Amino acid sequence: MSRYCFTVAYDGTDFAGWQIQPRQPTVQQMLQETLSALAKEPEIKVHGSGRTDSGVHAVGQVCHADITRSLPLVALTRGLNSKLPSSIRVLSAKEVSGDFHARKSAAGKEYRYFIYQGRIMPPHLRLYRTHVPCELDLVAMEKALAVLHGTHDFVSFSANPDREVETTVRTIFAANLNENGKEICISLRGDGFLYKMVRSIAGWLIRVGRHEVTPEETLKVMESKRRTASVPTAAPQGLFLWQVFYSPDLGSANT
Amino acid sequence: MSRYCFTVAYDGTDFAGWQIQPRQPTVQQMLQETLSALAKEPEIKVHGSGRTDSGVHAVGQVCHADITRSLPLVALTRGLNSKLPSSIRVLSAKEVSGDFHARKSAAGKEYRYFIYQGRIMPPHLRLYRTHVPCELDLVAMEKALAVLHGTHDFVSFSANPDREVETTVRTIFAANLNENGKEICISLRGDGFLYKMVRSIAGWLIRVGRHEVTPEETLKVMESKRRTASVPTAAPQGLFLWQVFYSPDLGSANT
Repeated sequence: MSRYCFTVAYDGTDFAGWQIQPRQPTVQQMLQETLSALAKEPEIKVHGSGRTDSGVHAVGQVCHADITRSLPLVALTRGLNSKLPSSIRVLSAKEVSGDFHARKSAAGKEYRYFIYQGRIMPPHLRLYRTHVPCELDLVAMEKALAVLHGTHDFVSFSANPDREVETTVRTIFAANLNENGKEICISLRGDGFLYKMVRSIAGWLIRVGRHEVTPEETLKVMESKRRTASVPTAAPQGLFLWQVFYSPDLGSANT
Repeated sequence: MSRYCFTVAYDGTDFAGWQIQPRQPTVQQMLQETLSALAKEPEIKVHGSGRTDSGVHAVGQVCHADITRSLPLVALTRGLNSKLPSSIRVLSAKEVSGDFHARKSAAGKEYRYFIYQGRIMPPHLRLYRTHVPCELDLVAMEKALAVLHGTHDFVSFSANPDREVETTVRTIFAANLNENGKEICISLRGDGFLYKMVRSIAGWLIRVGRHEVTPEETLKVMESKRRTASVPTAAPQGLFLWQVFYSPDLGSANT
């Protein structure tokens, strides 16, 4: 039995998210079916670093799977890519120790959220950017982002806070805002993210950028420890799971 | 009767090209139906600056239409965009004189062809870039491009040369190659382009960049005045109709 770790990119447009669901196409299901066919082994289970929602993209999702046969890595990557739809690409494969777990071993993640600020949304960007038809105040957004940096209870910026999670405290150890022409990219690196946390932060920052709320209100929202309608969930298509970090002793899956 | 000129962007992925065809979705048909419904006038005809093939995109296609009622321009643009699918956007509308014709008045066009040179194609770029899984020799490609610059008979770089065209001589007055990370953009400005001319030039340049042929052979191919299999037609999804130029006396549709 060998454990393989894969770095995977996908266009989330045509999938009902990462996680397997009945009667809907998902990335996890496509990978499981393709890997099972390639390895000639029934029902191989693929474990992701975490879920992504319907319409959310990934450029560096990480997952692992156990395969009875030992397979050459290049043949594995090529074989998977030749059978998978072009909306899913295996970027790399490596053999890892049986201790490695794509979700449990993850030390952190980076997400990027892309906004297009222009009057009319260019058709070829519509599935990969969120449209905000006005210019956003980046200085205000940066002020709000600075409040979110560090270790906090992010329950106000998550959905379904009743879900079983041990704690809603998370650490954002890098938060950046970049403008490139009419595009804005919010990048967040943290030790973990609650359900819909990045899209909630993006939704709040867009409100700040539109002067609907002030950057100073960010702390009040966070300290309320209650999700309210004042924090909207930004649209899924702007979100990319950018990379997953692993503790050095387990090796990085992004090399 | 008023004549309106529209600048239109579209994602060609879901359309069987610009031109109306039976039982297939086309951009021209979508625009005609939407404009007819908005203006409450049956069968308004929309005339484009030229066709684009299935899968080819546009960021600055230009078309015109005659409407009996006079309509405010902002309401026209907003109304069309609210009814059109998000894969087609009307960027601007203006009223033009009855002399203006989107195709006949065009003085030139710019096309851009985008290549992604990397081992694995990122899923979110697959519909908007052509994949070349190796590094291309840009210096060689630039040499070949320089041969194509100027006024020539481009019949070797077109498809269906038997089509009714008065002449296959065209002038490329600007030809550039730009590299941005793993992306290459070939931009061509000319007084007009033959059927599949840009994709044929792109196909040839990719062969030059891969060292399958030398830049010096470009002149020989051009002078042969015969389309052969040595010039492949590059894939449609890398191609964007970038802008259409009009003689100053008729006014530019791209302002």
